[in-house]
Amino acid sequence: MLVQKYRDMLSGKSVIRQLAEFASARGQEIGYENVFDYSLGNPSVPVPQEFTDKMIEMLSTRESSELHGYSPNLGITSVREAVAASLEKRFGLPYRKEHIFMASGAAGALAHAFRLVTEPGDEILTFAPFFPEYHPYVDLTGAVLKVVPPDTDSFQINFEKFEEMLTDKVMAILINTPNNPSGVVYSGATLKKLAELLTKKSEEYGHEIYLISDEPYREIVFDGVEAPCVSAFYDNTIMCYSFSKSLSLPGERIGYVAVNPRCKHAEEMIYMCVQISRGIGHNCPPSIIQLAVSEVLDKTSDLSVYERNMNLLYNELVALGFTCVKPGGTFYIFPKALEEDAKVFCQKALKYDLVLVPGDTFGAPGYFRMAYCIDTEKVERSLAALRKFVKEEYGRG
Amino acid sequence: MLVQKYRDMLSGKSVIRQLAEFASARGQEIGYENVFDYSLGNPSVPVPQEFTDKMIEMLSTRESSELHGYSPNLGITSVREAVAASLEKRFGLPYRKEHIFMASGAAGALAHAFRLVTEPGDEILTFAPFFPEYHPYVDLTGAVLKVVPPDTDSFQINFEKFEEMLTDKVMAILINTPNNPSGVVYSGATLKKLAELLTKKSEEYGHEIYLISDEPYREIVFDGVEAPCVSAFYDNTIMCYSFSKSLSLPGERIGYVAVNPRCKHAEEMIYMCVQISRGIGHNCPPSIIQLAVSEVLDKTSDLSVYERNMNLLYNELVALGFTCVKPGGTFYIFPKALEEDAKVFCQKALKYDLVLVPGDTFGAPGYFRMAYCIDTEKVERSLAALRKFVKEEYGRG
Repeated sequence: MLVQKYRDMLSGKSVIRQLAEFASARGQEIGYENVFDYSLGNPSVPVPQEFTDKMIEMLSTRESSELHGYSPNLGITSVREAVAASLEKRFGLPYRKEHIFMASGAAGALAHAFRLVTEPGDEILTFAPFFPEYHPYVDLTGAVLKVVPPDTDSFQINFEKFEEMLTDKVMAILINTPNNPSGVVYSGATLKKLAELLTKKSEEYGHEIYLISDEPYREIVFDGVEAPCVSAFYDNTIMCYSFSKSLSLPGERIGYVAVNPRCKHAEEMIYMCVQISRGIGHNCPPSIIQLAVSEVLDKTSDLSVYERNMNLLYNELVALGFTCVKPGGTFYIFPKALEEDAKVFCQKALKYDLVLVPGDTFGAPGYFRMAYCIDTEKVERSLAALRKFVKEEYGRG
Repeated sequence: MLVQKYRDMLSGKSVIRQLAEFASARGQEIGYENVFDYSLGNPSVPVPQEFTDKMIEMLSTRESSELHGYSPNLGITSVREAVAASLEKRFGLPYRKEHIFMASGAAGALAHAFRLVTEPGDEILTFAPFFPEYHPYVDLTGAVLKVVPPDTDSFQINFEKFEEMLTDKVMAILINTPNNPSGVVYSGATLKKLAELLTKKSEEYGHEIYLISDEPYREIVFDGVEAPCVSAFYDNTIMCYSFSKSLSLPGERIGYVAVNPRCKHAEEMIYMCVQISRGIGHNCPPSIIQLAVSEVLDKTSDLSVYERNMNLLYNELVALGFTCVKPGGTFYIFPKALEEDAKVFCQKALKYDLVLVPGDTFGAPGYFRMAYCIDTEKVERSLAALRKFVKEEYGRG
């Protein structure tokens, strides 16, 4: 018989996907260039030319078995060395290849991290607003994801609520900074307070509370914003990284788990990742992509377009009277809707071909997300639609 | 706290890996060309030139977002269409894209198949000799893998033992033909008898018993051997395929799940695979590899070397008095050892720089595996070592 829990999931359609499908269908009608589709977080800028050049060079010169052969279970050794060296240079922590496990993007990295430190029934806490896929990612392991309500003033951490929820059933905290959907970067003060609380509670409960740091937007930080290294604040940190956004290759499925070198049993944890892989059908990221990415570790796509787009949107939103925390990074912005029910607000916006995602799905009802990883020219054109929408529906502007 | 079940697994080292490590260390001493390393099933022939050409062409001409963007959750639509068309043309079953889910190699495909049809505690049966990774693959889902003892005369199915073990707790049967490690191809008669028994028992128990067919060696079949299509015999078949061996790109992690179009709920099962993916951190095979492979679906690497190697080894083994079922495909052969304990036999062989794997790990004690995916020239040189080993240790030849 087919397994019921997966059949049951078929009826629950992702709101984001439904909106993206609307945008696509509407695009067929009026031309996709006329749909202001802010639904999907799909990078819009090309990979660095160096990546493409390296791929072509390797395909033209290297032996097939060297290029396409099985990767060792931990990832290709030279690639892990290069990742560790890059992290050490950048963050000043003594990373070695022994702390690095290559994974199929952030989703693959998180699948390993959750299984390293939680048994079924254990709790993981995350902070609203949060990436909604965390729910199936965690729930299907048997662990329980609980969501701490947002601090809507700053979209930093709501420590009051957090402390209430931080019981001895909690084995891990899951954070995402720079954050999807708020665009906010956790400050040094936030991370320091978080680390202090986790250290205190770990002692009190007599077991480690691990910090799982999901960092796919780490390289997309805007001018003047300080983005502290999470691992530097707390020894028991498991960093989950993806190159999807920094190098614009989300389809190639490459990232890594980096266990803090100061974490107890760090090297053992990396070997445990290999055992976890055997149970979930993970078998390293593609070899050729590992090799190519390791040559451009300290490069990124031209990410400046995201900041340009953010400024255009932020300034317009504020001018129109929206309440909005200014993003410090990513390609998301998360303003407050102009009426209580953000679902109704976003539904009305569709009439103006503005595709916005209600915050409910991110654990923050009353807000909405715009993913501005689109051409700046389109962002500029969308501002008129935004003004018209706000004026006609809410009498503002 | 770290999860104990994964920590416990760290002490159990794979026999195959240990032997491969021996071969590598010995190679450092005496030159790798002098070690007759039959331990690992790593393809030795290059990818087809058409694959490399296609990769370079795409990298040189296509848009970055088209090439490296997120794949839809089911796999790239055009790729699924091409896979379905190729399967329909080849096997005459009405495959459509709705029956195809792109997966990260056979390991990824199997991870989905097991979760489709088993809950924790359910049983899956497989037949010895079998690929030892099936144990962690299944056990870590919570289902239970039980191994039917081998029919050592033919390495087809031991139906007597199978029927005894086929209780109503069994939800799936896992087969691998052409088989690793025996090299044997299941005959039409075997598959017919298997299908009849499963149909009868499904009715008797009032639930489907699914057939999970792991087919990474499907394209490596030797001259004159008939390799019947498993899915044609039994409607409730879930085919798990990998391009690792046919195209020699095991590191690029690409394969698929193909649910038999005649299987009840086939299309629903494909959508269920997407839900399963969310829980295991799977996120489609790499986009660029999907696109490139779809252009060479009906091509293979030059696989003739494997048959040449097989014939050299088989003839020599038989001449030396080994009992050995002649392989019909793959790049494995699985002779009977010359003493009862194959572990002792393989240990003695190491003195002659022959790296053989004892059959115990494949569920068939007393036998040993040779993976002859190595250069023919090396196979030829190994024959003298084999003769010397057999003569000095067993007084034969």
